[in-house]
Amino acid sequence: MPTLLPRPTAQEFSDGEFDLTRDTALSAHPDLVQPAQRLQERLRAATGFVLPLDVSTTAPDSVGIRLDLDRSLAAEGFALETAPGAVRIAASTGRGAQWAVQALLQLFPAAVYRRSPAAGVRWAAPATRFTDAPKFPWRGAMLDVVRHFAPTRDVLRFIDLLAMHRLNTLHLHLSDDQGWRVEIARYPRLTEVGGWRPETQLGAAHGSAADGRPHGGFYTQDDIREIVAYAADRGITVVPEIELPGHAQAAVAAYPELGVGDSAPTTPWTLWGINPVIFNVEESTIAFLSDVLDEIIELFPSEYICIGGDECPKIQWVEDERTQERMRELGLHDEEELQSWFVSRIGQHLASRGRKLLGWDEILEGGLADGATVLSWRGRVGALTAARSGNDVVACPEDTVYLDYRESDLPSEPIPTGTVTTVEKAYSFDPVPAELDAEQATHVLGGQANLWTEHIDSMRGLDYRAFPRLAAVAEALWTTGDREYEEFAPRLAEHLARLDAAGVEYRHADGPRPWQERPGVSGRTRSVEEAAAHLARITANIG
Amino acid sequence: MPTLLPRPTAQEFSDGEFDLTRDTALSAHPDLVQPAQRLQERLRAATGFVLPLDVSTTAPDSVGIRLDLDRSLAAEGFALETAPGAVRIAASTGRGAQWAVQALLQLFPAAVYRRSPAAGVRWAAPATRFTDAPKFPWRGAMLDVVRHFAPTRDVLRFIDLLAMHRLNTLHLHLSDDQGWRVEIARYPRLTEVGGWRPETQLGAAHGSAADGRPHGGFYTQDDIREIVAYAADRGITVVPEIELPGHAQAAVAAYPELGVGDSAPTTPWTLWGINPVIFNVEESTIAFLSDVLDEIIELFPSEYICIGGDECPKIQWVEDERTQERMRELGLHDEEELQSWFVSRIGQHLASRGRKLLGWDEILEGGLADGATVLSWRGRVGALTAARSGNDVVACPEDTVYLDYRESDLPSEPIPTGTVTTVEKAYSFDPVPAELDAEQATHVLGGQANLWTEHIDSMRGLDYRAFPRLAAVAEALWTTGDREYEEFAPRLAEHLARLDAAGVEYRHADGPRPWQERPGVSGRTRSVEEAAAHLARITANIG
Repeated sequence: MPTLLPRPTAQEFSDGEFDLTRDTALSAHPDLVQPAQRLQERLRAATGFVLPLDVSTTAPDSVGIRLDLDRSLAAEGFALETAPGAVRIAASTGRGAQWAVQALLQLFPAAVYRRSPAAGVRWAAPATRFTDAPKFPWRGAMLDVVRHFAPTRDVLRFIDLLAMHRLNTLHLHLSDDQGWRVEIARYPRLTEVGGWRPETQLGAAHGSAADGRPHGGFYTQDDIREIVAYAADRGITVVPEIELPGHAQAAVAAYPELGVGDSAPTTPWTLWGINPVIFNVEESTIAFLSDVLDEIIELFPSEYICIGGDECPKIQWVEDERTQERMRELGLHDEEELQSWFVSRIGQHLASRGRKLLGWDEILEGGLADGATVLSWRGRVGALTAARSGNDVVACPEDTVYLDYRESDLPSEPIPTGTVTTVEKAYSFDPVPAELDAEQATHVLGGQANLWTEHIDSMRGLDYRAFPRLAAVAEALWTTGDREYEEFAPRLAEHLARLDAAGVEYRHADGPRPWQERPGVSGRTRSVEEAAAHLARITANIG
Repeated sequence: MPTLLPRPTAQEFSDGEFDLTRDTALSAHPDLVQPAQRLQERLRAATGFVLPLDVSTTAPDSVGIRLDLDRSLAAEGFALETAPGAVRIAASTGRGAQWAVQALLQLFPAAVYRRSPAAGVRWAAPATRFTDAPKFPWRGAMLDVVRHFAPTRDVLRFIDLLAMHRLNTLHLHLSDDQGWRVEIARYPRLTEVGGWRPETQLGAAHGSAADGRPHGGFYTQDDIREIVAYAADRGITVVPEIELPGHAQAAVAAYPELGVGDSAPTTPWTLWGINPVIFNVEESTIAFLSDVLDEIIELFPSEYICIGGDECPKIQWVEDERTQERMRELGLHDEEELQSWFVSRIGQHLASRGRKLLGWDEILEGGLADGATVLSWRGRVGALTAARSGNDVVACPEDTVYLDYRESDLPSEPIPTGTVTTVEKAYSFDPVPAELDAEQATHVLGGQANLWTEHIDSMRGLDYRAFPRLAAVAEALWTTGDREYEEFAPRLAEHLARLDAAGVEYRHADGPRPWQERPGVSGRTRSVEEAAAHLARITANIG
């Protein structure tokens, strides 16, 4: 009996099975044409069976696979019933139907994830019925395409993997010190100059060697439109991130007038870490960034636009006379207030365009703008503070869902960083801090896993870090009710066959394959105690 | 007016256009269901229009896109007519219809190659008609997945790109000194031990540094079945290559009893070049390799099985007493004859399974087995010799279609090797040596471009080397009649927009983008004169 991941509540099995090899029709309510098409495509690719698709409300109800609307179901929720001769899907929205399709696929043999028909497979699904809906409306993953660029095709593939796990949000980290990855028509130097760096720090340790190899690439606006539409067709929203006022070196290198003083670097940064190069606070810079965000808004229909806001050292502002003068002009008392002012100005611009500001939890420092939504990454302090002040929160605590962190204490882990983050740890993820009361808890929209790519230079490496932990996070964000790792583990083991079929080079439980190792490239690890002490130190300013 | 690549002979345009946005049906003869599905898939992905597919011989002939059989057309040939309201495709076989579909796609805007619907595009094709057929039956590319492994998804993508250019053969180089890339159920150590190497030589020069990074990966038998079926659905045959008796280190490391003497290496080779480690000539080794080939034959329906045969230094055989004794047992006079005996034994085994032996032109040395087909890579000597002796030939001369060779004299070319091989040079490719008479020329099946990957460590790098040169090779192998580079160049420029839409990071005419360079990593270049002298030296034994 195939088990599902994420797990539904109260699934019932009965005798019999749905056999795809019989003459099967596919019919769908006109509002559900996209999920029906996805199902048709996948089944055709993997099984060779072409299910004729009838998009109407009048198709006979007697035979084949049918997708219907049922507005009474929960948001993103669905009901699925498989029986001899018939599959019935009901969903309140297209997105719910997408997830129903994904659940249905898991009832078939794992080869359903291959891209050409496998011979000798019995295409049958056991008879079952259940109703399901996600616990949280924000279930995501952040992909850092700056530190290492992922070509469009790899982003599309990552979207497929998110959809397979019923995650509905892809947060794309598009600008940072080390690169600028999205074409901005008005400011072409952002990608001409900011789109590549001459070399890259290899490993995490201070003083580690540079690799001497240029790295770059960017998405044209057509590429972005392709990514956004591809994701939307699969129930996934792409949330763009343009970093400010820190993590700015690529932009400052491209347009030195955006920097503080006159010592702008000439290329994106080639090191990892926290960089002193930040944007200046002139009106012209606010205007420049507003122009950039206008193009971003045009490209990304997402309600939320992420503006970063994290890890912004104030040293350039402190030491720069003009910035100090500007602070006095604005009547601001310190650089924390200045950052808050900067973020608020950008937030006002986003609001004027009907979008919501999303930022890392540093935006809480110096005062939080009304309506801002916080990505709470430094433990749970940001989530607590924001939710208590009535701001919305997306939880992504680094000690639980930073999937670039090492998965074990093994010295063979490739470039090990951070604290040990096992599958079990990721599975324990709960975005809602226990300290919040019920009303405050409603401000927690959900959570996401983050995949920073300083030490992930290929999609093969990304597979190793992301899976199977992302499957655990997906279930943590979807499934209502108690979760026990002991119950999850055997379902995950079964799920690995699906990942194999989908071509995912996930981490095996016993550690990296020899070719997944990176001997001699040093990481920087923390014990749980060190991480806690560090966390207390860096979050002292919150609230 | 969009122009096609490869170019058809005698294309006529008329007024009007076929507009996909009108209510369009897609009907196909039952034998043409696969090409019709490929068309339906691509148009749905890129345009959002779902063309209902009617597979029958009785669909009305009046409207929409129709694919019919016409057995009177040449092999792989087709007729294509677009007009207001209707597209008519006729083809003698499914493969011909695949190429017709590819030609039709090129008549639409380049965004037809994207994977989600582009907004604001007019989905119209100009009215035109022509009949077309390829000049050669073997139009291929060899991909070396040993020197650098390409995950299944990347092989599938490469297949898509071959299909787009109407190439019908993917030659997969699956074993070599540096790795063994295909699971063999009977001999699991081939991939357990042979599937990865501890590090890799960086650059081409002697004495260049090792990168210290393990590299590996292999295809499971299910992966191979997926690749083969995916290719077949797109009109492409996958020809596997298992190297023997040289290029054997990965296999010998896995099973030392296959080696000469008792000094077998413990890992695949970490260097580039010609390796003295070769198979021994025991009956047990012939039996082992026959077992391996039996599994290969089971996986690959290809008529041809490539057994390598190239670059086999005889020093281990010369110095090994047991090998010398075996030569005397077999009544052979020298090591060239011994290699010929080895290849013949393998060829007999393949013949007993109904398959044909394909080998690099070194198999001509010491006498060529009846029925063997020769990959002529060292200039044209192999092609001449084989065709004159009545053996079939696939031309892939290194001076014209080795697409890993540098594209210009620019010092910025990434790890430049070989002679300069421009797009124009690749376009000049003619597989048939002028010295052959008409009857001999019929033995030239066609040609292929080769992509060795010593210095190509990612698909991004492969895109740079393969395109746009592979588009030039594709036209050289397809188009009948005179070809002028001056006529081709503007069509290629137009074709680049299609490659952009397909996400191909091709080489721009002015050289590498900064991030495509590999400063400090030395290649090994040859002038045309040096290459000619080298060629004369290494082909002295042929014939």
